[in-house]
Amino acid sequence: MRLLRYGPAGQERPGLLDADGILRDLSSFAPDITGEVLSPASLARLAALDPQGFPAVQGQPRLGAPVGNIGKFIAIGLNYADHAAESNLPLPTEPTVFTKATSCIVGPSDEVTIPRGSVKTDWEVELGFVVGTRASYVPRERALEHIAGYVLVNDVSERAFQIERGGTWDKGKGCDTFGPIGPWLVTRDEVGDAQQLGMWLDVNGQRRQTGSTGTMVFDCATILSYLSEFMTLMPGDVVTTGTPPGVGMGMKPEPVYLKVGDVMTLGIDKLGTQRQTLVAWKEAA
Amino acid sequence: MRLLRYGPAGQERPGLLDADGILRDLSSFAPDITGEVLSPASLARLAALDPQGFPAVQGQPRLGAPVGNIGKFIAIGLNYADHAAESNLPLPTEPTVFTKATSCIVGPSDEVTIPRGSVKTDWEVELGFVVGTRASYVPRERALEHIAGYVLVNDVSERAFQIERGGTWDKGKGCDTFGPIGPWLVTRDEVGDAQQLGMWLDVNGQRRQTGSTGTMVFDCATILSYLSEFMTLMPGDVVTTGTPPGVGMGMKPEPVYLKVGDVMTLGIDKLGTQRQTLVAWKEAA
Repeated sequence: MRLLRYGPAGQERPGLLDADGILRDLSSFAPDITGEVLSPASLARLAALDPQGFPAVQGQPRLGAPVGNIGKFIAIGLNYADHAAESNLPLPTEPTVFTKATSCIVGPSDEVTIPRGSVKTDWEVELGFVVGTRASYVPRERALEHIAGYVLVNDVSERAFQIERGGTWDKGKGCDTFGPIGPWLVTRDEVGDAQQLGMWLDVNGQRRQTGSTGTMVFDCATILSYLSEFMTLMPGDVVTTGTPPGVGMGMKPEPVYLKVGDVMTLGIDKLGTQRQTLVAWKEAA
Repeated sequence: MRLLRYGPAGQERPGLLDADGILRDLSSFAPDITGEVLSPASLARLAALDPQGFPAVQGQPRLGAPVGNIGKFIAIGLNYADHAAESNLPLPTEPTVFTKATSCIVGPSDEVTIPRGSVKTDWEVELGFVVGTRASYVPRERALEHIAGYVLVNDVSERAFQIERGGTWDKGKGCDTFGPIGPWLVTRDEVGDAQQLGMWLDVNGQRRQTGSTGTMVFDCATILSYLSEFMTLMPGDVVTTGTPPGVGMGMKPEPVYLKVGDVMTLGIDKLGTQRQTLVAWKEAA
């Protein structure tokens, strides 16, 4: 199944995209797509229903992130060997973990804001997974059972904030709008092998990143098991798993960063595409 | 006002401690103490009511963290000059920011679990502040207006996970039960100057940390303003502001860490006290 949330920001309603690509409203099944809806039992109940029993949604509504009320947004760094090389950082011997602020989450085609003072805003196409059942001390061989599905993530990053301002990477990873997720949460059964998905990202129509989840250093099962040693993953938590080569910071002869008016388009096989226009920061209303 | 949440974990009800130390149930005012309750307008409405109009709660119920549904739990490292020295780390020129997983939050006297494989679980008494109104690009001189109140936090830390496992500190800061908060959220008006509060922590009755928020490198106003450059702080977000000297990692002639059965007691002037017993990890139910 392809689950989604549609409507104005902060007022999203639950939906699914049926086999014919028709958006159907799931409000009669659940008030929102949150952790509780993503348990194996709940997904099985939904899968047993005829999608045509849910009303078709007219028009082309905005899509939000396909999961609401995300408790934790955890990220893995340097998880593709070539990306570690372009970042001039050694390949990690165990997963590199950082955190994206949940307040950075936006829909797949919302605008992305260049923060005040930023000159190094950068892109990162990534495979994310969404936790379906509570995970604590989970062995790798049971790890996939805890994954409800997969999502496309743009792990937008401000490299100066991330690397040059002291402390952890978290300063440059959680700026408002730095976490586009979606368009859909595609359930695990429908994705099949998540370690064989092609992925790409363009800036202004020029290809910048091309990769495959097949070259991840630590696969999704390893990451979930590893994280579950350090914290309990809860239903609805999102983990984004690192980016392949081709980020702006690694470009030759010199880095290239995003500027107002640029457009990022990105996609991963089976998980849909995103499109974001860069805008300038403004004072909060 | 001293606001709190009482009852079994996951089923906490809102309450306040009145001037006579009587716990009163606030369910008729709000279903829970969350971000919405902490706005200046909401706190003013509550302050205008007679506490005796709320029913007294009998017995000695467990207390939970005094804020529910915390969206972000942000932490500042190395914010006391002497603690940076005992950690063998240079004094930061701007705040060091890391993230504690929201799943680590527990009540002030809940048990603290030593994670599987941990040999370096450590203590950190800290002043936390709770955001009352949305904060984005807030100048320092307006920052305190965004703080609803203050809380006592034990920033429990696993030093090997934090420092020796690669990547950011987040791995050693967000283990389950590593975030005791409370007993109360004390509103800003009732705390007065939050930069003149004595603080202490004992392990098994022996004094380990003694300090004052007066020696913080970056004060609460500076921290809120600084963080608001990197992310929007939302009502109910909690920021914990660093620990004074005396952590286990810094002890001479050699570090001393927590073991099963140890008891931490800690307190900050006006913010109450906490007491946690260390227990061994166990398989999730």
